[in-house]
Amino acid sequence: MKHRILVCFSLCCFALTAQMDPPPNFVIVFCDDLGYGDIGSFGHPIIQTPNIDRMAEEGQKWTQFYVADPVCTPSRAALLTGRYPIRNGMTSSKRHVFFPDSPNGLPLEEITIAEVLKTRDYATAAIGKWHLGHLPKFLPQQQGFDYYYGIPYSNDMDSNQWGQYLKLAEDPHYFSETEFFNVPLIENARVIERPADQTTITKRYTQKAVQFIEQNKAQPFFLYLAHSMPHIPLFVSEEFRGRSKASLYVDVIEEIDWSVGEILNVLEKNQLDRNTIVVFTSDNGPWLLFKTHGGSAGPLRAGKGTTFEGGQRVPTIFWGPGRVMPGVINQMGATLDLLPTFANLSGAELPSDRKLDGYDLSQVLTQKSSSPRKDFFYWAFAELHAYRNERYKIHIKQREPIHYGRSTLVLEQPELYDLKADISEKHDLAETFPEILSDFLDKMDLQLMDVADSIPDQLADRIQQK
Amino acid sequence: MKHRILVCFSLCCFALTAQMDPPPNFVIVFCDDLGYGDIGSFGHPIIQTPNIDRMAEEGQKWTQFYVADPVCTPSRAALLTGRYPIRNGMTSSKRHVFFPDSPNGLPLEEITIAEVLKTRDYATAAIGKWHLGHLPKFLPQQQGFDYYYGIPYSNDMDSNQWGQYLKLAEDPHYFSETEFFNVPLIENARVIERPADQTTITKRYTQKAVQFIEQNKAQPFFLYLAHSMPHIPLFVSEEFRGRSKASLYVDVIEEIDWSVGEILNVLEKNQLDRNTIVVFTSDNGPWLLFKTHGGSAGPLRAGKGTTFEGGQRVPTIFWGPGRVMPGVINQMGATLDLLPTFANLSGAELPSDRKLDGYDLSQVLTQKSSSPRKDFFYWAFAELHAYRNERYKIHIKQREPIHYGRSTLVLEQPELYDLKADISEKHDLAETFPEILSDFLDKMDLQLMDVADSIPDQLADRIQQK
Repeated sequence: MKHRILVCFSLCCFALTAQMDPPPNFVIVFCDDLGYGDIGSFGHPIIQTPNIDRMAEEGQKWTQFYVADPVCTPSRAALLTGRYPIRNGMTSSKRHVFFPDSPNGLPLEEITIAEVLKTRDYATAAIGKWHLGHLPKFLPQQQGFDYYYGIPYSNDMDSNQWGQYLKLAEDPHYFSETEFFNVPLIENARVIERPADQTTITKRYTQKAVQFIEQNKAQPFFLYLAHSMPHIPLFVSEEFRGRSKASLYVDVIEEIDWSVGEILNVLEKNQLDRNTIVVFTSDNGPWLLFKTHGGSAGPLRAGKGTTFEGGQRVPTIFWGPGRVMPGVINQMGATLDLLPTFANLSGAELPSDRKLDGYDLSQVLTQKSSSPRKDFFYWAFAELHAYRNERYKIHIKQREPIHYGRSTLVLEQPELYDLKADISEKHDLAETFPEILSDFLDKMDLQLMDVADSIPDQLADRIQQK
Repeated sequence: MKHRILVCFSLCCFALTAQMDPPPNFVIVFCDDLGYGDIGSFGHPIIQTPNIDRMAEEGQKWTQFYVADPVCTPSRAALLTGRYPIRNGMTSSKRHVFFPDSPNGLPLEEITIAEVLKTRDYATAAIGKWHLGHLPKFLPQQQGFDYYYGIPYSNDMDSNQWGQYLKLAEDPHYFSETEFFNVPLIENARVIERPADQTTITKRYTQKAVQFIEQNKAQPFFLYLAHSMPHIPLFVSEEFRGRSKASLYVDVIEEIDWSVGEILNVLEKNQLDRNTIVVFTSDNGPWLLFKTHGGSAGPLRAGKGTTFEGGQRVPTIFWGPGRVMPGVINQMGATLDLLPTFANLSGAELPSDRKLDGYDLSQVLTQKSSSPRKDFFYWAFAELHAYRNERYKIHIKQREPIHYGRSTLVLEQPELYDLKADISEKHDLAETFPEILSDFLDKMDLQLMDVADSIPDQLADRIQQK
């Protein structure tokens, strides 16, 4: 009897503690063009990433985690809104991403993770690359962020050096001039440096991130740290240049790893590590066109700009010693799922006036339950290219395989891949298993109707963002 | 003063202990056609290998470890003798490996690891696939092993099912009949089963291995456990068939992982773990021709039968909690190096009457010193195809890229790859860096002279092994 009372008492205490847990802090470390294979714990034989590997060891390493589009702007929009690019309008069949002359941005009526968490009084900061509209009316402070520090579009823009870089990138150590890329560095809505000194940009993002955490340690906070690297042109600080003795790309990743270490350190120093969830991921696959200045998708096929796995599956880790149950998660997840997951964990309400495409992964994080995500649509450039449901993936259209500028190939016959048995999408099984293909096409149509039904007509207007 | 005496005393004790350490036991777990990317800790997104991953976590994970030839017979001969196939005669330009009608074997005058360790009174066993001559005069007991249990050549031989398997392997779950492959199972020199029941073969090898360890725990021992799997035809025991729900290949690797767990368990149960070094590796890259019944080289180019990295770089781990200093080793090593390393660690003399091609890696294992191996020759089918020195690799000849039966391509211009900056051998830098190429060719010639000088003429006779 005594034991029973003790057990009841303990359970009550646990329930009370659980209820009384403050809402967790969230940090997203979002890399630019980092490939699935570019991290030590994801199998890279050269790059040393002890801090990111430590996150994987102590947290959850996800091997089947997706971004909603294989290029920058729509991928970022999907992460922040939990909605496919065809729904939030951030997709274009012409230019794929925003350029310095684009007049548009993520529509202000879209609701971002920052806005959701604001309803629970989170302090919010976006540090790094934005790429969802660079005019003042589209900058992060218009989308729920208290603070912004970073570059508003890609670090290779506003420059005529692109072609030359492509040629010079044959040298793995080629180091460009930061002046060649006339990219502004913005704080809140003010340009504070132009061209941004990109050699110190990873370091400065990190300092700002650490400062934001220190300043907001007494309240819940959300930090969106979107590194500009390793998108070309590659730059690193003096401390890291040549340190790996392998290549500039490796130096760059090792500086990002250092940055991750700084984030983990400041969390631990302030006893925030038990109540913070850090997500590490990338916006799309490696830009293979740039040879040794681009990364590696590891065993996955192709890279950035394509809807093969190398373009949209990204190396993802959830870390949070007090919140996240460690392990390797061989199930599906997507950046689309972050908004619903964070909403649940923080106690915030989800937007009720619109359709979301994300799933709440909180039970997977805290209890390693089965992932609610069983399927995924691969949109690219406003068109549906591929669909995955459980182990099978079907390709309807493709872009091959290196440079996303090339035209789309409409497949005469759909291709069917078994991603569990064939991780590199090498063996089209459509002819071997016609029944599986036929069942699968039915499944896709059913799911697609569900997506299509909930897209209002007026969203079509947004698709031409120029 | 008291402290000083204590320190001196402690140091003396340490020195004494070090001197009095018994020679370590050695276990080599050698897989057949396992690819670089087929292990969880080497980046496979599906296959779960907790026991092998534990070896990597507690021991040394080598990311640049080579076999001396991309096919079975010469690779195995090189591991056991510490000598390149051109030197020990186990290479043929015609049939690559021994077949059931081959009259030859590894020459008896070759000195194997087992024979070296016999001079220090090791108990020795070869369990699994031999493939160095199946006539009684060439079996393991003629080469220093006290005990042998296994199949004498590849598990797909003596069968007319090969072509059919190739077709049926399009189904990731296709499970052949063990009766289709008339392979003998031999104990010592006696055939005890024919055809061998391959469905239980991994399990039975493991039982024999555990039994050998139990029976020899009081003396130093050397166990060479050469699994027949995952060479096609794939077979697993009932307990593992379908367990992964991914593919038969995945089931097979997960049974090998179980087997590794059994070995570690029996070592720990008998307090042998502090004095045993377990090496896990593979004989060559994955056999890509067999689609989902073949494995993955991860980020490396091509597979078995080729001298691209996917053919000859293998996932290698050294485990030994009392002997091996944990870490990731991003330096070169090779199966050629096991003989000199084991000789040093056991206190055995190296053969003095012949040239060896291996380096002693014991300081890397025990202290993480810099690896003495700085270069590597890629021989295939009695011809030099490629050469690596530090970060660069040059290709002179190639076999592309899936089936080793195809003819050799003699390159008009050598190709130059930077394996640190370009892990997938995608970017030939010969034209970009002509000076590096020229220096590198000089280096190769110098090293090659050293190798060639020490090959006696009469070895040429051995090359035609039929």
